[in-house]
Amino acid sequence: MVRLGSNRYGKAEVRVVHVARSEGSDDLIRDWTVSSALSGDVAACYLTGDNASVLTTDAQKNTVYGFSQRLGDIEPEAFATALAEHFVATQEPITRARVAVLEHPWARIGTLPHSFARTGAHTRSTVVIHDAEQGTSVVGGVEDLVVLNTTNSEFWGFPRDEYTTLPETQDRMLATQVSASWRFASTPADWGAAFDTALATLLATFGGTYSYSLQQTLYAIGEAIIGAVPEICEVRLVLPNKHHFLVDLTPFGQGNDNEVYYAADRPYGLIEGQVLADDAPPEGLAWT
Amino acid sequence: MVRLGSNRYGKAEVRVVHVARSEGSDDLIRDWTVSSALSGDVAACYLTGDNASVLTTDAQKNTVYGFSQRLGDIEPEAFATALAEHFVATQEPITRARVAVLEHPWARIGTLPHSFARTGAHTRSTVVIHDAEQGTSVVGGVEDLVVLNTTNSEFWGFPRDEYTTLPETQDRMLATQVSASWRFASTPADWGAAFDTALATLLATFGGTYSYSLQQTLYAIGEAIIGAVPEICEVRLVLPNKHHFLVDLTPFGQGNDNEVYYAADRPYGLIEGQVLADDAPPEGLAWT
Amino acid sequence: MVRLGSNRYGKAEVRVVHVARSEGSDDLIRDWTVSSALSGDVAACYLTGDNASVLTTDAQKNTVYGFSQRLGDIEPEAFATALAEHFVATQEPITRARVAVLEHPWARIGTLPHSFARTGAHTRSTVVIHDAEQGTSVVGGVEDLVVLNTTNSEFWGFPRDEYTTLPETQDRMLATQVSASWRFASTPADWGAAFDTALATLLATFGGTYSYSLQQTLYAIGEAIIGAVPEICEVRLVLPNKHHFLVDLTPFGQGNDNEVYYAADRPYGLIEGQVLADDAPPEGLAWT
Amino acid sequence: MVRLGSNRYGKAEVRVVHVARSEGSDDLIRDWTVSSALSGDVAACYLTGDNASVLTTDAQKNTVYGFSQRLGDIEPEAFATALAEHFVATQEPITRARVAVLEHPWARIGTLPHSFARTGAHTRSTVVIHDAEQGTSVVGGVEDLVVLNTTNSEFWGFPRDEYTTLPETQDRMLATQVSASWRFASTPADWGAAFDTALATLLATFGGTYSYSLQQTLYAIGEAIIGAVPEICEVRLVLPNKHHFLVDLTPFGQGNDNEVYYAADRPYGLIEGQVLADDAPPEGLAWT
Repeated sequence: MVRLGSNRYGKAEVRVVHVARSEGSDDLIRDWTVSSALSGDVAACYLTGDNASVLTTDAQKNTVYGFSQRLGDIEPEAFATALAEHFVATQEPITRARVAVLEHPWARIGTLPHSFARTGAHTRSTVVIHDAEQGTSVVGGVEDLVVLNTTNSEFWGFPRDEYTTLPETQDRMLATQVSASWRFASTPADWGAAFDTALATLLATFGGTYSYSLQQTLYAIGEAIIGAVPEICEVRLVLPNKHHFLVDLTPFGQGNDNEVYYAADRPYGLIEGQVLADDAPPEGLAWT
Repeated sequence: MVRLGSNRYGKAEVRVVHVARSEGSDDLIRDWTVSSALSGDVAACYLTGDNASVLTTDAQKNTVYGFSQRLGDIEPEAFATALAEHFVATQEPITRARVAVLEHPWARIGTLPHSFARTGAHTRSTVVIHDAEQGTSVVGGVEDLVVLNTTNSEFWGFPRDEYTTLPETQDRMLATQVSASWRFASTPADWGAAFDTALATLLATFGGTYSYSLQQTLYAIGEAIIGAVPEICEVRLVLPNKHHFLVDLTPFGQGNDNEVYYAADRPYGLIEGQVLADDAPPEGLAWT
Repeated sequence: MVRLGSNRYGKAEVRVVHVARSEGSDDLIRDWTVSSALSGDVAACYLTGDNASVLTTDAQKNTVYGFSQRLGDIEPEAFATALAEHFVATQEPITRARVAVLEHPWARIGTLPHSFARTGAHTRSTVVIHDAEQGTSVVGGVEDLVVLNTTNSEFWGFPRDEYTTLPETQDRMLATQVSASWRFASTPADWGAAFDTALATLLATFGGTYSYSLQQTLYAIGEAIIGAVPEICEVRLVLPNKHHFLVDLTPFGQGNDNEVYYAADRPYGLIEGQVLADDAPPEGLAWT
Repeated sequence: MVRLGSNRYGKAEVRVVHVARSEGSDDLIRDWTVSSALSGDVAACYLTGDNASVLTTDAQKNTVYGFSQRLGDIEPEAFATALAEHFVATQEPITRARVAVLEHPWARIGTLPHSFARTGAHTRSTVVIHDAEQGTSVVGGVEDLVVLNTTNSEFWGFPRDEYTTLPETQDRMLATQVSASWRFASTPADWGAAFDTALATLLATFGGTYSYSLQQTLYAIGEAIIGAVPEICEVRLVLPNKHHFLVDLTPFGQGNDNEVYYAADRPYGLIEGQVLADDAPPEGLAWT
């Protein structure tokens, strides 16, 4: 005998672009990938194919478009909250909704009011979970932010087992592709300003930390973001160590005074960690 | 004030290929992508950059290679278990190891003993977690298995809110790209046979289920796998609904009797669910 | 002063799936990505934005769907020819059409009449160019065919300049991801049989060639395909050398008797070459 | 009987990062993917596996690293030229070399001297071909530059065949992912300044052109670049039309005054064209 455990369903990767236009002003653009997932009293669908409780994923997609028009130029955290609350409020069997938004940034071309170029520098992210009983959690973050320090990084003092051949180094290049997520304990005055502060803090801390390990850099970033944005109570970071190895040019009679590196693809180190404010409230459903 | 929460670090995506050769026999090949992640008493590294407890990720990579040579032609579940136990047994501060293996299948070319072609049909996966106190969990699975039924799928009887425009259908194409993971409650006699049985059951159940929703198909697959492999106590499935929409050819004066479809990329439905044996033991760390 | 040079425009990557159904028989499925590109007397569009000669790319997409329904279960080379001829025949300013089809193979699940699983083993390709004056060319081929020999490959006798450090080897693993294209000098009796023969010949020749360089293997494959399919007069191959390097385990006190390799991502060798029948007719527009 | 046609071989995608450091100054970084391909009197390798004329691709990789150290902070066009000339000058059988460089841009983090963040906004490209008899050609360019105009684009006046259902529009969103290549007829005073001018001109022209078709925009961009950089004699552009379709919200009782779009993935329009200065010299080998 078997039984149904946890489950959810929804529409993933709805690509919606909103343009806010007003006479005499520059256009504002929001380029999003929105995913929604619902759960609740929908077991019949799994067990017998009875769809009476299942708001279609097609309708979820339509709701994204409709809400985009109604809500206009809005921060992704606020959009995701409104959408999640809507599904739970209007669909009786649905007791929980998860809405994720990726925001792809664009930069204005010069002073042209209607023209934009994509900056591929990073993606802003948010995940909102609204539960009928447990309330609402908001996580913000950034993905695909690639950063590099050409120096100010050492790595030594590690244990040496039979498989350890790595030499110690007092000067290495340090690069990573940051995936960061931060949990809000309360709602900031301005979601956009909170994101901007978190991102600027992340960049400055990565660049400003003299590092003895990527783990140390991870902790420093988490601590700094929590210090910079009072509403953030927790930061989770996934930091691949994008190895840049110094090339040995001695076979060719050349030196290499920290000049020439090769950037390796795989394998890569991978550091994952969580930094919490001492007074962080329980995480509840935030990371589910 | 902040503190360090859960964390782990390791080497991701070590690409190792093992060839077993023996006089007069065909070669056997194992093509793997191995990722290891360790945790334990390593907080000093995060807090002060003291690496005294940190087995390097480079050494973890070397260990993958060394174990591959020592263990030879071995099932990925057994390899991952041996590797995870090694890290915990030999590194005093390390109390938990997670080892994931993706196995990329190859098929022999004709009867040639040394020649192979990649079958891109699917990837076999395993995740083993070994903890000094909580013991060992083994999850197997398959990824990137794309399947399609040309008929025997209906979708109707769903609620209609203000954003619902989807017509009901009594005959649709159903396609998905299966990601399945199954938890073992005990060790099967043969990891390879268990995988083969689970995969064959998955395919037969997808094809053999007359479906009123992808949710129903998900549950049927989970139930069938648990029934077919006694050691499996839980199945988790992530099923994107790879929509194939019937093209409306009436503007061109043509009919379309379920002949011509367009395969959409995004957005897509996404169904995620868990099926458990009634007597499944607690999951412990298996899914972390 | 500037002028317009060569140009073309069209719809790329139309994802069309055709199902042929008949009472009492198994379904047949064709899963294609179709791209069309047109050229001719369309300069006004570039110079002044006058679209009077520009069949829309949206209409090109619709034509793919319409032809799929009308032509039914058909070989991709024949489909591409019919579509290319249609555009030139019906659009007065259009004098040349290029139609490319990628066919993604599926395998039947067991003996189920309506159920399929994708085999990711390779993609079948075709490019047809039809020109009002120069006639029609047909190129077939295969992409993403990954093959590997565990032995029977040597590499030595190469020149050694100041940057050459590679040791010679009398036994290496040889792997590549084949992109092959073959030009037809005349129409075979059966496009499908021609493809099957070319593919089987490619596989058997890769596996059966004792190789002193990937270049040698390339030539052998081209020669064999031309020998096996009389209508093929030219083969072009792009062969990335997917390096599998033997891992040095001596630092860990282990041998490695051609057992453990790491599969490198980048950089990779890249060998490109053309093999022609002595009596191959001029290539004309075939490769444009 | 068969014969060898055109061919080349080399090392693809060497990932090299160069850091220029000097006391008291900010670091300069060049992040490149370099590919080299050689041809000449190397037929024996294809025909018999005789490698006596084949400089190994491994040595080509090493040469990239060695030249990076020797040449220091240099423009990619100059680097590619030096490398191509080296191979032809030093390897007797080699009569032609093709070197391609992709430059991945980074931006300094604030005023930190050693810290950088990747801007994913675009990739700078160059392809240099040096032939012992025909001399040297240089092509520069940009890839993955994604741009969008929220208005100032119309599309109407196109012919309507039986498969044309697209309505005309007087106001649409226009977006594309630019791949542009420009051929130099002579060497500019400063490769970097030439690139900057071409890129700025491309962006300004895309944004500043009131467009009746993407073809018209293509021609305007090519014309503008040739006008802005005197040494450039030809521009080739590949412009996918990244469709942004206005969402029909009327089923939900909502208007959509050019506010909400969905960004489609596939299929997409694809416009390819060449713009030439009237006095452009023959292209020779530049595009091979």
